[in-house]
Amino acid sequence: MTEIYLDRFRARYASRAHGMNASEIRALFAVANRPEVVSLAGGMPYTAALDYHALAEVTQAVIRDAGPAAMQYGEGQGLPALRQQLTEVMAAEGVRAQADDLVVTTGGQQALDLVAKLFCDPGDVVLAEGPSYVGALGAFASYQAEVVHVAMDDEGMDPVALEAALQRLAAAGRSAKFLYTIPNHQNPAGSSMSVQRREQVVALAESHDLLVVEDNPYGLLDFKGELRPALRSLAPDRVLYVGTLSKILSPGLRIGWVAAAEPVRDKLVLLKEAADLCQSNLTQHVAERWFATQPWLRQIEVFRDVYRRRCTALLDELAASFPPGCSWTAPTGGLFVWVRLPDGVDARQLLPKALSARVAYVPGAGFYADGSGAAELRLSFCFPPADRIREGVRRLAEVLHEEVELMDAIFGDRR
Amino acid sequence: MTEIYLDRFRARYASRAHGMNASEIRALFAVANRPEVVSLAGGMPYTAALDYHALAEVTQAVIRDAGPAAMQYGEGQGLPALRQQLTEVMAAEGVRAQADDLVVTTGGQQALDLVAKLFCDPGDVVLAEGPSYVGALGAFASYQAEVVHVAMDDEGMDPVALEAALQRLAAAGRSAKFLYTIPNHQNPAGSSMSVQRREQVVALAESHDLLVVEDNPYGLLDFKGELRPALRSLAPDRVLYVGTLSKILSPGLRIGWVAAAEPVRDKLVLLKEAADLCQSNLTQHVAERWFATQPWLRQIEVFRDVYRRRCTALLDELAASFPPGCSWTAPTGGLFVWVRLPDGVDARQLLPKALSARVAYVPGAGFYADGSGAAELRLSFCFPPADRIREGVRRLAEVLHEEVELMDAIFGDRR
Repeated sequence: MTEIYLDRFRARYASRAHGMNASEIRALFAVANRPEVVSLAGGMPYTAALDYHALAEVTQAVIRDAGPAAMQYGEGQGLPALRQQLTEVMAAEGVRAQADDLVVTTGGQQALDLVAKLFCDPGDVVLAEGPSYVGALGAFASYQAEVVHVAMDDEGMDPVALEAALQRLAAAGRSAKFLYTIPNHQNPAGSSMSVQRREQVVALAESHDLLVVEDNPYGLLDFKGELRPALRSLAPDRVLYVGTLSKILSPGLRIGWVAAAEPVRDKLVLLKEAADLCQSNLTQHVAERWFATQPWLRQIEVFRDVYRRRCTALLDELAASFPPGCSWTAPTGGLFVWVRLPDGVDARQLLPKALSARVAYVPGAGFYADGSGAAELRLSFCFPPADRIREGVRRLAEVLHEEVELMDAIFGDRR
Repeated sequence: MTEIYLDRFRARYASRAHGMNASEIRALFAVANRPEVVSLAGGMPYTAALDYHALAEVTQAVIRDAGPAAMQYGEGQGLPALRQQLTEVMAAEGVRAQADDLVVTTGGQQALDLVAKLFCDPGDVVLAEGPSYVGALGAFASYQAEVVHVAMDDEGMDPVALEAALQRLAAAGRSAKFLYTIPNHQNPAGSSMSVQRREQVVALAESHDLLVVEDNPYGLLDFKGELRPALRSLAPDRVLYVGTLSKILSPGLRIGWVAAAEPVRDKLVLLKEAADLCQSNLTQHVAERWFATQPWLRQIEVFRDVYRRRCTALLDELAASFPPGCSWTAPTGGLFVWVRLPDGVDARQLLPKALSARVAYVPGAGFYADGSGAAELRLSFCFPPADRIREGVRRLAEVLHEEVELMDAIFGDRR
């Protein structure tokens, strides 16, 4: 990667607070992490809701029964017994796969990094929802791929916009290496692709011979436990499926996976080995035993219930206290709400004022590769308890009211 | 990465058994891992020598005292308390660093991958000892860098050869992005760079404005506990230092690190975040508490003693049973002995015969990027016990005697 490119990469994607230099970012996060600040910024799961008694048992059993193996190098593809368990996790969402189709990765993030490394040469196009996951944009950018966004709404990615993007690319003599999508409770937008849209998107992928990378961290976190068909289940040969344990067990284990047909799977194993040889056998054994011995679906229900209550608190308080001219998504699962501010309000410029008012969020611009999103922001409801979320929203609402009044005073009718 | 390139990459580097296709490799490893086969192939540390009582205590304490943090996302740069402990590990080798200089990575392998990603564009030159670590060659190749080897002998890399390589590059209008070296108990050669050579290599790096990447997995595994000055201690600003816990604690934790001055360190943190967000907080907490509460230098002495005895067994049996015309290095630490076979013997072609005789090794060609090494091979003395090592060497010696007799019968004096 050239130095010049890295500077662009740094400036645009690599941190969660964009357009700032490293020391500004560090200062910002130091403030955001102060206990008096309500952080609606991070996507940290509520790991305190885990059963630590069970986890201690599982960990002890691993050290006792499989110590030397757990402390040894593992296979590049991942622990076979864990891969078998992960197919059960996929089955809980109605996705069929064989253990041999899976490559264990360091969270979903490494799966995206390896897929980008395999497919992307500098200047290649990747299609993705706008907005999209900042970590995916960063991974694609680190291989100098160009992200072209496809518009989305409350029903997820818009197939008409997708077809138009494919046609524009074709007219310019270009094609996309793949379509990247988070169909369930998308990060950051919080919306899910409807069943009809899934069928339309897959049909377009088929007719345009387009590879699909389906990223599904949040599917099992639907508040009602409803499941929509995975794109992979609609077109197994056309879809690389990326999963992770970060939101249904723990991000601290750093276990994700990608399910792919054989020629791609073999190449991903080689790239995994070149990147870091293999996954931690200790965390793989812990995860394997967790799924083999614990009521893991019950643990997911605990997370779901926590997030549902917190989401309700966030949505209620948004409705009660945000100024007119704002709108937001109404998630049915996952961790995030996406907010549109009145035109002219810049979420990035507003952040220092919000931090002074002791509330943090993530400005929207970082979730786009094309410079849009200035008047948008992401709020998460996963980490602080409900009353703190309400307090945070009230603080942010005050800052917004002031900002809107100030703009009205300056610009008056011209807005 | 283009498809064509990946095929070259696959063919040359990415597995430990080169020049074979994926199913041949799988078959080979299936045979090598059978219990009746003595494997002198892998570089797996003898993790059974760890104190599992202590490890169970450490793990329980982490879950009990820091559970939700250990199961949460971590910082991109790595857990601060662990980075502090890692500076103590470096200090045990006489290398000074600040915790803030360090970036925690998934083993030393990811450190090499990120360094290559940062510095290497397609066609760039990297200098490395010949032979060199196969995982490093694979990482450099995955960014399409060209490795130019520098000859080495029992005193490590030859500074005269290094200077000649630099001059040849300059004459061709090229320069090297960096010099990659394993100065202590090198993998695969088993030799260490003398103190004088270290000074000469660093002086050449200074005079040619050459960045050095110093990879040091084995320094603390010197059989007598002798330490040679790290290149980084001779030229702190010119050397990126790569460390790992894989050989002094456990490869199953997948914890390595790179020490780098600020502008490079910041870029490595960004690339780490794009690659996999962060290291496992669970394994980082376990490692941190291990170094904070356990007699970790005593554990390293246990490993040292095991490897010293096994190395002696290997060297004694080589002297007793290998045919004339073979030579080998005499390591003073680490895990590996490098063997040169009589001219004309091809170590790769010999491997199936060796496996039939129930002994495995790694053919030498994989440790070179330039196609040399056909008559060389690597033997490891880290995993099987001493009597099995002797048995393995005797089996390999028989295969070699037969091969040499066969060649003598066919070629007679012409050899």
